[in-house]
Amino acid sequence: MSTGLIVSISGPSGVGKGTVIDRLREVLPGCGHSISVTSRAPRGQEQDGVEYFFRTKEEFEKLIAEGEIIEYDQYVGNYYGTPLTPLLKMSKSGTNVLLDLTVAGSLALKEKFDDTVTIFLLPPSMDELRSRLSGRGTETEELVDKRMAQAKGEIAQAEKFDYVVTNRTVEQAVEEIAAIMKAENRRFRRSRDAVETLLAQ
Amino acid sequence: MSTGLIVSISGPSGVGKGTVIDRLREVLPGCGHSISVTSRAPRGQEQDGVEYFFRTKEEFEKLIAEGEIIEYDQYVGNYYGTPLTPLLKMSKSGTNVLLDLTVAGSLALKEKFDDTVTIFLLPPSMDELRSRLSGRGTETEELVDKRMAQAKGEIAQAEKFDYVVTNRTVEQAVEEIAAIMKAENRRFRRSRDAVETLLAQ
Repeated sequence: MSTGLIVSISGPSGVGKGTVIDRLREVLPGCGHSISVTSRAPRGQEQDGVEYFFRTKEEFEKLIAEGEIIEYDQYVGNYYGTPLTPLLKMSKSGTNVLLDLTVAGSLALKEKFDDTVTIFLLPPSMDELRSRLSGRGTETEELVDKRMAQAKGEIAQAEKFDYVVTNRTVEQAVEEIAAIMKAENRRFRRSRDAVETLLAQ
Repeated sequence: MSTGLIVSISGPSGVGKGTVIDRLREVLPGCGHSISVTSRAPRGQEQDGVEYFFRTKEEFEKLIAEGEIIEYDQYVGNYYGTPLTPLLKMSKSGTNVLLDLTVAGSLALKEKFDDTVTIFLLPPSMDELRSRLSGRGTETEELVDKRMAQAKGEIAQAEKFDYVVTNRTVEQAVEEIAAIMKAENRRFRRSRDAVETLLAQ
C-alpha cells in the first residue's frame, strides 16, 4: 500500500484559503484532517481524539518541548496546536491529509517532515487582496493596512514552498491543488510498490 | 512569461506509450513536439525544420560529438536523432514540449537539462504486457520473450524517473500525465514571476 500525502496550504489573510480548503474536502472525500490538541477542558459530549486531543497545560508544554507541536496559539489562557504524530500515522495508513497552516507552520512542518507537500495560495493581485480584506467590513482601514504589510512579508516567503497557486476563482484553485495531489501520488518514491510488484512477477 | 515544461515519456515496448502520447496531444493542444534531425536527404516537398532538420552525415556526427543529440538511431545508413537546442528554445518561449523517448533517451535528457520532467509508463502487470506484445501478432514467441526480458531491465530503471504512471486505461494515464503537467507548472521555480509581480505592486 502506498502512503498518503501530507499537504499543507498557507497564504496571507484574506486570500480565501478557508473557502478553497472547504471545497477541496468536498471534491476529495476521504482526505484526512488534523485534529488539534488543546489544553482547555472538554465541554459537554466532547471526546478526546474526536473534537480535540485534550491535554493538561503541562502535557502541552512537554509536547512543545519535544517538537511534537507544528504550530500553536494561545487563546483565553489555553493552548491550541497541531500535533505531528497523528498526521504521520494517517499518512502511513494511506490517507491523504490536508492541512490549513500558517506560513510559519507549513515551513516548520516541512522542516520536521521533508516529504510534506507545501502549497502557497496567492491573491490574483494586491488590489484584489485589499478589496477582499476591506470587503469583510469588520476591519478598520488601519488594520487592513497592517494586514497588507503582513501579506507582503508572507508572500516574500512563497519561494520556500513547493508550489504556488493563484486563487483567481475557487474552482480553478481547487482544480490546480487536486492536480498537484494527483501528481505527487505518482512520484516515484510514493509509487515504488507498483514498480517492485512488476519486477517480482 | 513563464517557461514551458519539457516532459519526456518513456516505457517498455508494448506499454502503449504511442497511444497515450497521441491522446495527450489531442487533449492538450498547443503542446510542442520534437522535430528530429536526420542525415537522409529531403524528399519531395520536405522542408528543413518542418518534417526534419536535414544535416549531412558529417554535421550530424559533429552534433553528436557536441552533446547536442539526446538520442539517435541509424536506419538504412542514415542517422535520425532528437536535438536538444530546439526543445530548450520552445520551452523558453513558453511552450510545453512533450517527448516520446527511449528510457536511455529520457535519462540522457535529464542529465543534460535537469529541469526536464521525466515520466515512466508502467504496464498494469507483466502478464498484461506480454499479452499486449503477443496481441500484435507480428512477433514470434521468442521475440516476445526477448522483449519481456528487455522490459524488466527498463522497469528496473523507473526509479531514476520523476514520476511513474500505470497505463491501466488510456484515459486514466492521460489524466494523470495532464495532472503532472498542471502541477509542474505550479512549482515555485516556474511561477516565480507571479510572486515577483505581487511583491512589486
